[in-house]
Amino acid sequence: MKFTNKNIYAVIMAGGTGTRFWPLSRESSPKQMLRIVGEDTMIRQTIKRLHNFLPLENISIVTNEKQAFDLNLHLAELKKGKNHLKIIAEPIGRNTAAAIGLAAVHLKKVDKDSIMIVLPADHVIADEKAFIEAVKKAVGCADSDYLVTLGIKPSKPETGYGYIKAGVRGQGSGVRRVKKFTEKPDKETAEEYIKDGNYLWNSGIFVWKASAILDEMKKYMPLLYKGLIGIERWINTKGEKKAIEEAYSRLESISIDYGVLEKSKNVMVVPADIGWSDVGSWAALDGVLPRDAYGNIIKGNVVDIESRDSIVLSDKRLVATIGLKDMIVVDTSDATLVCQKHRAQDVKKIVDELRKRKREEHLFHQTIERPWGSYTVLESGNRYKIKRLVIKSGARLSLQLHRHRSEHWVVVSGTARVTKGTEIYDVHPNESTYIPVSTKHRLENPGKVLLQIIEVQNGEYLGEDDIERIEDDYRR
Amino acid sequence: MKFTNKNIYAVIMAGGTGTRFWPLSRESSPKQMLRIVGEDTMIRQTIKRLHNFLPLENISIVTNEKQAFDLNLHLAELKKGKNHLKIIAEPIGRNTAAAIGLAAVHLKKVDKDSIMIVLPADHVIADEKAFIEAVKKAVGCADSDYLVTLGIKPSKPETGYGYIKAGVRGQGSGVRRVKKFTEKPDKETAEEYIKDGNYLWNSGIFVWKASAILDEMKKYMPLLYKGLIGIERWINTKGEKKAIEEAYSRLESISIDYGVLEKSKNVMVVPADIGWSDVGSWAALDGVLPRDAYGNIIKGNVVDIESRDSIVLSDKRLVATIGLKDMIVVDTSDATLVCQKHRAQDVKKIVDELRKRKREEHLFHQTIERPWGSYTVLESGNRYKIKRLVIKSGARLSLQLHRHRSEHWVVVSGTARVTKGTEIYDVHPNESTYIPVSTKHRLENPGKVLLQIIEVQNGEYLGEDDIERIEDDYRR
Repeated sequence: MKFTNKNIYAVIMAGGTGTRFWPLSRESSPKQMLRIVGEDTMIRQTIKRLHNFLPLENISIVTNEKQAFDLNLHLAELKKGKNHLKIIAEPIGRNTAAAIGLAAVHLKKVDKDSIMIVLPADHVIADEKAFIEAVKKAVGCADSDYLVTLGIKPSKPETGYGYIKAGVRGQGSGVRRVKKFTEKPDKETAEEYIKDGNYLWNSGIFVWKASAILDEMKKYMPLLYKGLIGIERWINTKGEKKAIEEAYSRLESISIDYGVLEKSKNVMVVPADIGWSDVGSWAALDGVLPRDAYGNIIKGNVVDIESRDSIVLSDKRLVATIGLKDMIVVDTSDATLVCQKHRAQDVKKIVDELRKRKREEHLFHQTIERPWGSYTVLESGNRYKIKRLVIKSGARLSLQLHRHRSEHWVVVSGTARVTKGTEIYDVHPNESTYIPVSTKHRLENPGKVLLQIIEVQNGEYLGEDDIERIEDDYRR
Repeated sequence: MKFTNKNIYAVIMAGGTGTRFWPLSRESSPKQMLRIVGEDTMIRQTIKRLHNFLPLENISIVTNEKQAFDLNLHLAELKKGKNHLKIIAEPIGRNTAAAIGLAAVHLKKVDKDSIMIVLPADHVIADEKAFIEAVKKAVGCADSDYLVTLGIKPSKPETGYGYIKAGVRGQGSGVRRVKKFTEKPDKETAEEYIKDGNYLWNSGIFVWKASAILDEMKKYMPLLYKGLIGIERWINTKGEKKAIEEAYSRLESISIDYGVLEKSKNVMVVPADIGWSDVGSWAALDGVLPRDAYGNIIKGNVVDIESRDSIVLSDKRLVATIGLKDMIVVDTSDATLVCQKHRAQDVKKIVDELRKRKREEHLFHQTIERPWGSYTVLESGNRYKIKRLVIKSGARLSLQLHRHRSEHWVVVSGTARVTKGTEIYDVHPNESTYIPVSTKHRLENPGKVLLQIIEVQNGEYLGEDDIERIEDDYRR
């Protein structure tokens, strides 16, 4: 199903600090990059869902600069060719009002009649057809300059979501005026909301004209508006990056809900029953993944005896569980979480603690994605580090040198083309080569299959930052 | 404190299948080899406790042939010199009556008046002084041809132990006649025992003359006796091993308690208050290790938030726990256990399941001890395996070859002396060498510091059994 209007755009909000799904999420791989529900990552599922009715070039992602690097890598396939996905990078996070405003300024510059669908990168929407229907309805309403939100028909008195009180029927079938936004309620209030029947969950999915949201920002957040509109003339010019940086250093950090929606008189809601969940914590998996006869969600290398109502996820290592009740166990190669289900929100306290102790288990995984493939740290010891490198067919690392370490490479599969000083030669499986300290070198996979290399580093300093790049296909 | 009698010997029963303390215990490192309580392994602590009053050459260990290899390695320091510890290997396990009988036959051959102290390798005894006092008392009684057991004064109505009902006072101060042995009682019965005041825990520590126990075996287990006595003339001859094997193939598998002690009229008990625990499961740690203010035992790389009455042990990897209550979490490099405390006995069901699935996590750890040092498997992949080898100063591996794999060696510390075919050469840190398939080779540490090597194996088959040993310092 394609939309008939050509001026519809989607803006995916991709932020996240990777705390609530630790240890699976890390700072470098927040929730949107995880495969928690379904086969693909949440952000790729979000894009695919939109790509059902929008061309790729009408989809953009707003993120911060730090995550833009990883997202570019993660979405490389979708960024190829002429009409590709766009990534808009904020220099620093300034909450949703600024991010949406920045996207609106971009879209208005491209097309003054742009209608933008704003949605988070990391929510689950089980019923795609209903989602498209709801968006279509919202687009019709947004076309008349309303700010439109999708309001989810609540299935239970959830205390973890904000609610929208819907008023009289608005224009279009089923669209209703918003009477008020509420904070997350307590249990009792949530039960009243359900009984009342006019309350909907605030999904964070919005549809409006770029011009309409900017007009309302002008009214309710004049400083933010002024900052953003100053960027407008630099969009798609050399000065864009600098202009955004300057503006952002002064922008307010306020949510779109608080800054605009709760104040505006023009807000409508489309009640929607689309199988939505924001999957806010490990405990939320119960609502979005199938449970076995004992109420468990068990995945991966797990041997369980008589657990109930528990979530046990393992990556490669063996996890054995006995008699768990309402527990969460999540295992990754370098860290394991064991948590009572009702304490799932406290996972962020663990991450805080790791930050305080200057640990690394909250920052990145043992396997790190790179434009050319990935590497996995197998062991770090005194004056040595062992990595497995996987290099994609046709890819190559930068021409580089290290001041403090030498590297032994043993090829275990594929063929390596090695540049070492002025020599270039191929290394085959079960062959090895050696790169002395301070020697220019490059590793390339000229073949058709994955190249896998075991690298043994020796040296007094083995930090990733001991690298001088002389030439790089990825302009790092 | 030395004993005045010269004819006192200790026999340590070292069996165990490594199930109850999985994943820390494995088939190749059962409980007696673990450092659960105190700095040293349980069996070394048991030996030290005896060595306080017995010379090493009066201490022997009865174990099965499979474990004898690992124990010889583990106790290598105590087996040096002339007057060393003895290890008696049973060809197959035949329960305690056979093991004790075999030791008795050995001791009677050496010294017909031998008094033997029989005790398990893997129990905790906190009060060494009281232990020695109790043993002394028992020796006095055993000298008059009684079979003597140590009976532990019960501190609570434990249902996990067998009880001994003590009768009238026997000879020597405090020694009492045994009225009966009981099975593990239910809670109610255990409480009655405590109230009664005449019941003691059966510790599995026995003292008797070798001749006395053999006499009682002759009476109550004539077949076992006949089998054992047939071995006697072969002891300390070339035919010993064969004689034992032949006898064992026909021996009954019965415990000493059931086979002799419950029937004999000559059994006495020394009531002892020695801080004893058999540490029968992870849950038993609560009784033998200090708990923090919240009732937790937390060791290693753990970040905990508000857990109570739980046991959390980690080796190297990070374990994060939130709000646990009465839980056990044990992490090792290749497997993690998460278990409700009152289900600790069911850990053996996990091991059964692993056995059934033909897994390896119940057999051995990632790091495996060898006479020359140790190796750690860092990663196994398709057609490759990566190990870190640690070779002790002065030690060398066997002269060997592999039919299916080649090996790349990178030295990361120390100096390697490498034999490769007919060449012998040294490899230094940050240097590497290569051993082709089917090439005779040997690795030696000629230096004064540990030699560490990263080994990358390549080949179609990478099993440990692809090894032909041409020459071996350890006669494997």
